[in-house]
Amino acid sequence: MAVKLEVRNQHVCFGGIQSFYEHHSQIINLPMRFSVYEPPQAQHTKRPVLFFLAGLTCTEETFMIKAGAQRYAAELGLLLVSPDTSPRHTGIAGEADDWEIGSGAGFYLDATEAPWSRHFRMESYLTQELLEIISKKFPADPERIGIFGHSMGGHGALTLAMRHPQVYRSVSAFAPIAAPVNCLWGQKAFSRYLGESTELWKKHDSTELIESGHRLPTPLIDQGMNDPFLIEQLHPDYFETACQKMNQPLILRRHPGYDHSYYFVSTFIADHLRHHLETLI
Amino acid sequence: MAVKLEVRNQHVCFGGIQSFYEHHSQIINLPMRFSVYEPPQAQHTKRPVLFFLAGLTCTEETFMIKAGAQRYAAELGLLLVSPDTSPRHTGIAGEADDWEIGSGAGFYLDATEAPWSRHFRMESYLTQELLEIISKKFPADPERIGIFGHSMGGHGALTLAMRHPQVYRSVSAFAPIAAPVNCLWGQKAFSRYLGESTELWKKHDSTELIESGHRLPTPLIDQGMNDPFLIEQLHPDYFETACQKMNQPLILRRHPGYDHSYYFVSTFIADHLRHHLETLI
Repeated sequence: MAVKLEVRNQHVCFGGIQSFYEHHSQIINLPMRFSVYEPPQAQHTKRPVLFFLAGLTCTEETFMIKAGAQRYAAELGLLLVSPDTSPRHTGIAGEADDWEIGSGAGFYLDATEAPWSRHFRMESYLTQELLEIISKKFPADPERIGIFGHSMGGHGALTLAMRHPQVYRSVSAFAPIAAPVNCLWGQKAFSRYLGESTELWKKHDSTELIESGHRLPTPLIDQGMNDPFLIEQLHPDYFETACQKMNQPLILRRHPGYDHSYYFVSTFIADHLRHHLETLI
Repeated sequence: MAVKLEVRNQHVCFGGIQSFYEHHSQIINLPMRFSVYEPPQAQHTKRPVLFFLAGLTCTEETFMIKAGAQRYAAELGLLLVSPDTSPRHTGIAGEADDWEIGSGAGFYLDATEAPWSRHFRMESYLTQELLEIISKKFPADPERIGIFGHSMGGHGALTLAMRHPQVYRSVSAFAPIAAPVNCLWGQKAFSRYLGESTELWKKHDSTELIESGHRLPTPLIDQGMNDPFLIEQLHPDYFETACQKMNQPLILRRHPGYDHSYYFVSTFIADHLRHHLETLI
């Protein structure tokens, strides 16, 4: 693999290195961007890696700017990676006109329907190409990889952890879209990206995956009870019920007053990093 | 004072409340925005207040989004306030065309020259109107007020602390423009806002203020040594020399590798909050 990574920006942060990269993705066949935080300990040893998947409208910068995770990653010796949330500049008409579909809304799956299927292959990109880049080009321990995310990225973390258990050994989520088959965000994205077969949709729905027998390392899920998307889009209760039915351990914390923003995410980010580290050790 | 504050956004964060406000400023005679973080302790008692002044191009949001200060404010019981960096939509031709002057570049002083003098009165706004709003409308202890800032806001913090010692009892700065009379940023802003009299400029230059006998509660200043603006714009060494000459205590820390970004600010923000609390107690 002769991958050429362009460093777009680099900053020292909490004694480690915060970097923003661009590269040509062979799987997506377009330039893709991602960010990496290397903790101070990464100068000497391979570190556990956490992939953070951001939500609708976000980019590879959002988590690194807003979550305040670097302080804890530096303390705990964790390498953090955050990809962009979709391919961009694909040439698909209207790709950036609707924040719920297209640019910034890749949903961490491989689209099967034209025109999206040409470039929107985020699942293969993450689980193959980006994973290989991180494993080979960074001080990453490939045996200790976790995944987490926010909203659409929480959906991505839960579903990818179930669909690729050989890759991801710890998982958590902030306000995930936990039953996308049953909400408008999910129905809109899945119908465009995956077509009309709801059987295929179910393979990308964390509640359905649990019900069909998939297992997860105990997920930590945090949900704000003042989240404006909770009732109509997120449905953590559906996921909780499925976990109870299937004897899947789950830590679901409901937080009165908190909303859907990174002011919520940053409040509980330290707990998530510790949860991953405890699971990965 | 019948001030009407419009709440633009509000979020629970680390058990406290993060709010963004807009109000009509009588001193600036335009709408102005500011942000407030109220720690959990503010529900019951009046808290010490820290005003954070952001740098060129920033807004009242920048510090609250990027610095990661809320966690420490919640721990230490500090109320945080960050104003916008200038008046906006003043009607002055080209006000937003140059990032070094006009919108986002108020330099925390009262302009004396037309057309800027009509609205660009950030010093009076901060030390009178916003101070009164915070004192009267929020759980703020008016006897324990500190000020800090970044870059242009570091200049603002140091100069306002010296020009208004009865208001601000603690001070710190990240990468301040420490001798604006001697750098292009300062010369450009001061010549437009204050005219050609360099005697007037010196009253807004922290190095000159120290040399003319003003005193400060021991400032903490952090400076990244890989800051691209260090050599030409910031001049902390001039300020350090003046402090040594005048027996003004100073904690100036030089950090190898760190740059001018909020990745630098966030790394040392906890130290600043603790420095203020120790000074204010």
